[in-house]
Amino acid sequence: MTRSAEPLSQAMVLLAKLEPSAPAKVQANLDAFSADAAELVLGFAFTDIVSREGIDLRTREMLTVAMLAAMATAPGQLEFHIRAAMNNGVTRGEIEEIILQVAVYAGVPACMNAISEAKKAFDVSIES
Amino acid sequence: MTRSAEPLSQAMVLLAKLEPSAPAKVQANLDAFSADAAELVLGFAFTDIVSREGIDLRTREMLTVAMLAAMATAPGQLEFHIRAAMNNGVTRGEIEEIILQVAVYAGVPACMNAISEAKKAFDVSIES
Amino acid sequence: MTRSAEPLSQAMVLLAKLEPSAPAKVQANLDAFSADAAELVLGFAFTDIVSREGIDLRTREMLTVAMLAAMATAPGQLEFHIRAAMNNGVTRGEIEEIILQVAVYAGVPACMNAISEAKKAFDVSIES
Amino acid sequence: MTRSAEPLSQAMVLLAKLEPSAPAKVQANLDAFSADAAELVLGFAFTDIVSREGIDLRTREMLTVAMLAAMATAPGQLEFHIRAAMNNGVTRGEIEEIILQVAVYAGVPACMNAISEAKKAFDVSIES
Amino acid sequence: MTRSAEPLSQAMVLLAKLEPSAPAKVQANLDAFSADAAELVLGFAFTDIVSREGIDLRTREMLTVAMLAAMATAPGQLEFHIRAAMNNGVTRGEIEEIILQVAVYAGVPACMNAISEAKKAFDVSIES
Amino acid sequence: MTRSAEPLSQAMVLLAKLEPSAPAKVQANLDAFSADAAELVLGFAFTDIVSREGIDLRTREMLTVAMLAAMATAPGQLEFHIRAAMNNGVTRGEIEEIILQVAVYAGVPACMNAISEAKKAFDVSIES
Repeated sequence: MTRSAEPLSQAMVLLAKLEPSAPAKVQANLDAFSADAAELVLGFAFTDIVSREGIDLRTREMLTVAMLAAMATAPGQLEFHIRAAMNNGVTRGEIEEIILQVAVYAGVPACMNAISEAKKAFDVSIES
Repeated sequence: MTRSAEPLSQAMVLLAKLEPSAPAKVQANLDAFSADAAELVLGFAFTDIVSREGIDLRTREMLTVAMLAAMATAPGQLEFHIRAAMNNGVTRGEIEEIILQVAVYAGVPACMNAISEAKKAFDVSIES
Repeated sequence: MTRSAEPLSQAMVLLAKLEPSAPAKVQANLDAFSADAAELVLGFAFTDIVSREGIDLRTREMLTVAMLAAMATAPGQLEFHIRAAMNNGVTRGEIEEIILQVAVYAGVPACMNAISEAKKAFDVSIES
Repeated sequence: MTRSAEPLSQAMVLLAKLEPSAPAKVQANLDAFSADAAELVLGFAFTDIVSREGIDLRTREMLTVAMLAAMATAPGQLEFHIRAAMNNGVTRGEIEEIILQVAVYAGVPACMNAISEAKKAFDVSIES
Repeated sequence: MTRSAEPLSQAMVLLAKLEPSAPAKVQANLDAFSADAAELVLGFAFTDIVSREGIDLRTREMLTVAMLAAMATAPGQLEFHIRAAMNNGVTRGEIEEIILQVAVYAGVPACMNAISEAKKAFDVSIES
Repeated sequence: MTRSAEPLSQAMVLLAKLEPSAPAKVQANLDAFSADAAELVLGFAFTDIVSREGIDLRTREMLTVAMLAAMATAPGQLEFHIRAAMNNGVTRGEIEEIILQVAVYAGVPACMNAISEAKKAFDVSIES
C-alpha cells in the first residue's frame, strides 16, 4: 500500500458520515491547538484506519463505542460515537446491548457512565 | 423478563460455542476458587448478557476483542476471545482490522499487545 | 446455590440501605435506558454479590470506595458510595484513611480526585 | 504531626507483618535499582500511610487487595497482598468475597485475573 | 539520605514555583479534607520526589504532563500541570508536541482530552 | 505540511536510533500479523510524530518511558523504551528519577512494575 500524503480531505469525508456537522467543528478545534494536529490525528484515525475496507463503518462504530465505554476515560467522545453509530445504522437496541456487554467486561461503573452518555445521545438522535 | 434461576447450564452451552473445550476447564478453574463463582460470574456474563438476542454472537465476540484489547489488562482472556471470535465466523482479516482500530482509540502499545495475543491465537486456529 | 430469578426487589432493599432515596432514582434512570437494565445490572451487583454474607455491608462499601477511587473513572459513583459507606457506619475518619491509602496504590491524582468527591459527600452527610 | 525523618526501620516492621520474609527481599530489590528508592517509596507507603491508626492492618490489606484487583495492572503485587491479607487474619472466604465484588466494579476479566493470583496465594498460604 | 521530618514548607516552595497562587489554595483544599493530608501527600510528591536533583523542574513538568495526559483520569490536574510547565519554561510548542505524542502511546481520545485541557491552560497563560 | 506517503523507511531510520537491532525484528513481527501494520502503525508513531522537531529524541524517549510506566499495561515495551532512552543519552540516574516520579502520579505498584523492567534494561545496557 501507499498511504495518502494529504489525508485531511478524505478524513473529513469520513467524519461527515459520522456526523454532518462534525468536520467544521473538529477541524476548528484542532487548528486552534496546533497547525498539524488535524492532518496528523485525523489522517491516522480516519484516513489510515477507520476508512479501511474489511469492516464496514457501521460495525466499526459499534467497536468504537465498545472501546470508549470500556476505557471510561472519554465521555464526550463516547457520546459523539454513540450518535455516529446511530447515524450509520446502528439501532438504539444495539447500543443498549453493547453497553450491557460493557458491564461484563469493564464493570458496572463503566456501564453506568456509558448509560449517561447514551441517554444524552438518544435525546438528540432521530432514532430514539 | 425473568432471569434464569439456574444459569449455569445455559452459560456452558454458550461457552462451548466459544470454544468446545472451554466449559470443563473454566468450571474447574472457578470451582477451585469458590463454590459459587461459576454460577455467579458465568451466569451473569454468558446467560444474562452475552446470550441475549439483539446482537449475534459473532458480532458480540468482535466487541469483546475490541474491549479487551483496548483495556490491555487481560492478555490471556484476549487470546481466548480472539480464538472464540474466529470459532464463530470472524475472519483473520477482521481480527487484523479490529486490532489496527485499537491503535487509534487506545494507542500503539495496546495494539502491539493485542498483536502478540492474536499471533498466539492464529497459531492454534483453523482459519489462520 | 440457586440464584434469585426475580432479583429486582432484593436489589432495591440493598440499594435503600445504601441511600434511602436511591431505589426510585436508580430504577428510573435505568428504565429510561433499557427495559432489562435494572434487573440485569442491579440483580448482579446487589442481589448476587453485594448482598452475600461473608463480608458485612459496611466493609463492602469501604472496598467499593477503595476500588472506585483507585480506578478514577466514575467520580459520580464514587461520591454516591462515599455517602453510602457513611450511611452504613463508616466514619469520616475512615473515609479519610481509605483515600490517603489510594495515594499509595493508585497515585496522588487519584487521591486528589477522590478528595473532591469526598468533600461533596461530606457536605450532604449527617456525620461530617 | 511530624513525620518520621528515618522511616525505613518502621516500614520494615510493617512489611514483616505482611510477610516475614519480605523486608530483606524488598529492600534488596529496591537498593539494586536506586540508593533512595527504599526509603522514599516504602517510607511513604508503609510508614506514612499504611501504619496509620484509624483503620487496622487487616482491613487495610482487604482494601489493598480490592484496589490492586480492580486496577488489574500489578498481578505480582496482588498475589503478595492476598498472602499478606491472609497473614493478617483475612480468611480465604473473605478473599473470595472481595474478588467476586471486583467483578461488579471492575468487570469479569479483572475478577478472573485476581482469581489466578488468589489461587497461587492460596497454594502457599497456611489458611487455604 | 535523611528525608525531611517537616516537609510542608519545602513542598510549598516547590508548589509556588509551579503556580504562585497554588500553595494557599491547595493547602486549604487538603486541610478541609483531613488534618494530615497536606503534609503526607505534598510532602511525598513535592519534597521527597519532585524537588530532587537529577532532573530539572522544567523537564519534570513535561513528564508529569505526559503521564497525566496518558492516564486520562485527572483532567483538572492535567490543566494545572500544563500551566505549571509553561510557568517553568516549557513552550506552547513543546506542550503541543507532548500531546501529539500522547496519541501514539495512549490513543487519540486521550490526546483529544488533553487538547481540551491545554486550550484552557493556554487561555490563562502568559505565553500562549 | 504534507505527510510522507511512504513513511516506512523513515520510521526504520528512527527505530534504528532507538535500538540498532530493532527495525528487522519489529517489521518481521508486524508483517507476520498483517500486510499493512508496519506502514500504518510505525508510520504514524515514528515518521509522523516521534520524528518531529520541537522536542529532541532524547527528551521524547523520557516522555515515552514516563507514559508507559504510568499506564502500566505494556511492560515489554516499557523495557524496550528504557533501553532506547539510554541508547539516546538518557542516563541511568535519569531513568531512576522518572520511575520515582511515577510513584507520585500513578502509584507505588506502577513504580514497582517499572523498576522490574528497568532492572532488565540495565542488565543489557552499556551504561548501567
